[in-house]
Amino acid sequence: MKKIKGGVTVPEGFKSSGTTCGIKQSGKKDMALIYSEKLAEAAAVFTTNEVKAAPVLISRNKIKNGKARAIIVNSGNANACTGEKGLEDAKKMTELTAANLKISPEEVLVASTGKIGENLNMEKITKGIEQLSSCLEKDDLDAAEAILTTDDNIKRIAYSFKLPNSDEEIKIGGIAKGSGMIHPNMATMLGFITTDIKIENRLLNEALKKSVKESFNRISVDGDQSTNDSAFLLANGQAGNNKIKEKNEDYNEFLKVLKKVVIFLAKAIVADGEGTTKFITIKVKEAADEIQADKIARNIANSNLVKTALFGGDPNWGRILAAAGKARAGIDPEKMIVKVNETTLYKKGEPVEISEDRLSRLIKKDKILIEVLLGKGKTELEFWTGDLTYEYIEVNAEYHT
Amino acid sequence: MKKIKGGVTVPEGFKSSGTTCGIKQSGKKDMALIYSEKLAEAAAVFTTNEVKAAPVLISRNKIKNGKARAIIVNSGNANACTGEKGLEDAKKMTELTAANLKISPEEVLVASTGKIGENLNMEKITKGIEQLSSCLEKDDLDAAEAILTTDDNIKRIAYSFKLPNSDEEIKIGGIAKGSGMIHPNMATMLGFITTDIKIENRLLNEALKKSVKESFNRISVDGDQSTNDSAFLLANGQAGNNKIKEKNEDYNEFLKVLKKVVIFLAKAIVADGEGTTKFITIKVKEAADEIQADKIARNIANSNLVKTALFGGDPNWGRILAAAGKARAGIDPEKMIVKVNETTLYKKGEPVEISEDRLSRLIKKDKILIEVLLGKGKTELEFWTGDLTYEYIEVNAEYHT
Repeated sequence: MKKIKGGVTVPEGFKSSGTTCGIKQSGKKDMALIYSEKLAEAAAVFTTNEVKAAPVLISRNKIKNGKARAIIVNSGNANACTGEKGLEDAKKMTELTAANLKISPEEVLVASTGKIGENLNMEKITKGIEQLSSCLEKDDLDAAEAILTTDDNIKRIAYSFKLPNSDEEIKIGGIAKGSGMIHPNMATMLGFITTDIKIENRLLNEALKKSVKESFNRISVDGDQSTNDSAFLLANGQAGNNKIKEKNEDYNEFLKVLKKVVIFLAKAIVADGEGTTKFITIKVKEAADEIQADKIARNIANSNLVKTALFGGDPNWGRILAAAGKARAGIDPEKMIVKVNETTLYKKGEPVEISEDRLSRLIKKDKILIEVLLGKGKTELEFWTGDLTYEYIEVNAEYHT
Repeated sequence: MKKIKGGVTVPEGFKSSGTTCGIKQSGKKDMALIYSEKLAEAAAVFTTNEVKAAPVLISRNKIKNGKARAIIVNSGNANACTGEKGLEDAKKMTELTAANLKISPEEVLVASTGKIGENLNMEKITKGIEQLSSCLEKDDLDAAEAILTTDDNIKRIAYSFKLPNSDEEIKIGGIAKGSGMIHPNMATMLGFITTDIKIENRLLNEALKKSVKESFNRISVDGDQSTNDSAFLLANGQAGNNKIKEKNEDYNEFLKVLKKVVIFLAKAIVADGEGTTKFITIKVKEAADEIQADKIARNIANSNLVKTALFGGDPNWGRILAAAGKARAGIDPEKMIVKVNETTLYKKGEPVEISEDRLSRLIKKDKILIEVLLGKGKTELEFWTGDLTYEYIEVNAEYHT
């Protein structure tokens, strides 16, 4: 496995483009197009929020046939809570893209991110799609930039690798956006992953679900969850490998690399979280099962008190225990151990004596590792989040205007 | 029913005191004692956090006999996550209080609030209890002040009322503390309610549970939940009314006034929430049942995005819908209506046209009423919260030091 420069246009046969159509008042890029020369196997997962944006409803329906050639994306307007008109607009976006690319509308998926509750300006969108279709290129810097909203940085990654049972070089690449409203089940995050591997659709779907569960679903910025989250995976088969038809060692190798891609993108989203100054890893260990571990990790990751304490460099570790307790996941404080940056602060019902100075130094680091051992079993998992800062308030109190 | 000045010492036979023993570095009052001349029927409810502070474990055990004469309280140190020593200290607090008051330790309850994970300084506590026992008075200003932590204001209330089947005047009073870590199930809040009514213990318990459910359990400041929440209710029977032995009209009248007391205290906690500038009432209407209504209300109340938008006076109402959707309580966006300060912003799948100016004016008010109509049934409930501000971050990033 080799890391290579670039993102979604690294695999054979993929192109992309990004442009400014004028949805964003700032004048920043706000539309992107991802395109595969050949019809690709397609898989996607969407937000579990009961309020789903129009593009989510449209793409969820289109993906059922398991094929796609293009994904049209806009940022700046989520096209959510927009009623019938919203649905028509999302559908129209796929039709316009298909017309410009001379493909079938059935082969086009759509995604949006941005403000909720406003209808799209379809005149601008129409011009945007025309532009995007005419400037597709073998690079994705513009596309990676155009999908951003409050993000500070583009997020992209690519790998090449070989399968145990094929000689061909396989490539996989991804881009993502997201920096707020990030929580369980992929809140306001968009992820686009492309690969030239040849694989059956059923296995592609399974691989995407499994890898998203351990990446985009294990991050949290503010505990809010979006109406628009979507992760797409297109596999166009152009690498020419022996098609993966079962869960053999080839499948396992693909899954391994796919996980690396999505975990990298998920962590990049956390690192770029609105106003965050710290990258916090929460490791829950010795859990009875994954449900217990997940509940504990999420509750700690979403505790405003834990997050402000870490921002302030405040060694108030009791808040970690309080957050774990409110998860009501069947823990036993008498069996628990809490460590911060590898130093034990609480052990089996008792606080560990440690100087205030040492504690402060521990918590003032930029990277914080919180380990919570439950003493219940053998399951462990990781969850990633950031701190809660003045800047988060600033970004979100003033996002609209 | 008549509102009268004062709190827990308004009912016949109750006294209280508050003092400074030196737990708080600020030199502010940090210990309180509430005392009934006669043995009272006692009821209490405690945090559902799985990490419970030592005083909660001790009081939960003591309350089983249904009787109490005194409650000893300290602020500044939660005596939580403090192991065996913590349990011994909490028990010792009840013993010392009993010795000073010449009553049985079985008749003394204990509560603590403040920092988690540090053992109490029992030398200071011992002196504090001596002082408190020697200055009990028919006033509760000192006690109301001594139970506070990051609160700005004392919270107290009292009523006198008559029962349909008795001539005697009944009095009820309460004090409370809480301003952060406030969420479901009474997070970091302490509530003390006294009354001179004569009532069977079983009914007293039931009335407390019912009223807490509709008050302290329907507020949220930051979604965090404490290890120490406790609400106590003592009824010493000194009003001399015909003892309430069944759920008759007397019981209903008592429950009505008790609810007024706890709802007032709950709202006062929200109004005093750490760094809040707005009082937000969330009314969920037309819910299928209470569970659905409660989930929706809590998710809106705990959405950092909703709370920062309201702080910023940002009319980003889509965040209300997104928060309702992430509750996964079985809503149908096509049937919903969202109103802010009585103006409809979203109706049955569509945004309502309204000028940006008017929207801004609506949301810039100090009191915000969010109404969410689900179109599912007839259940409605209220939930109270505040906004999320720079000051919240400041208070909580620097609480420890």
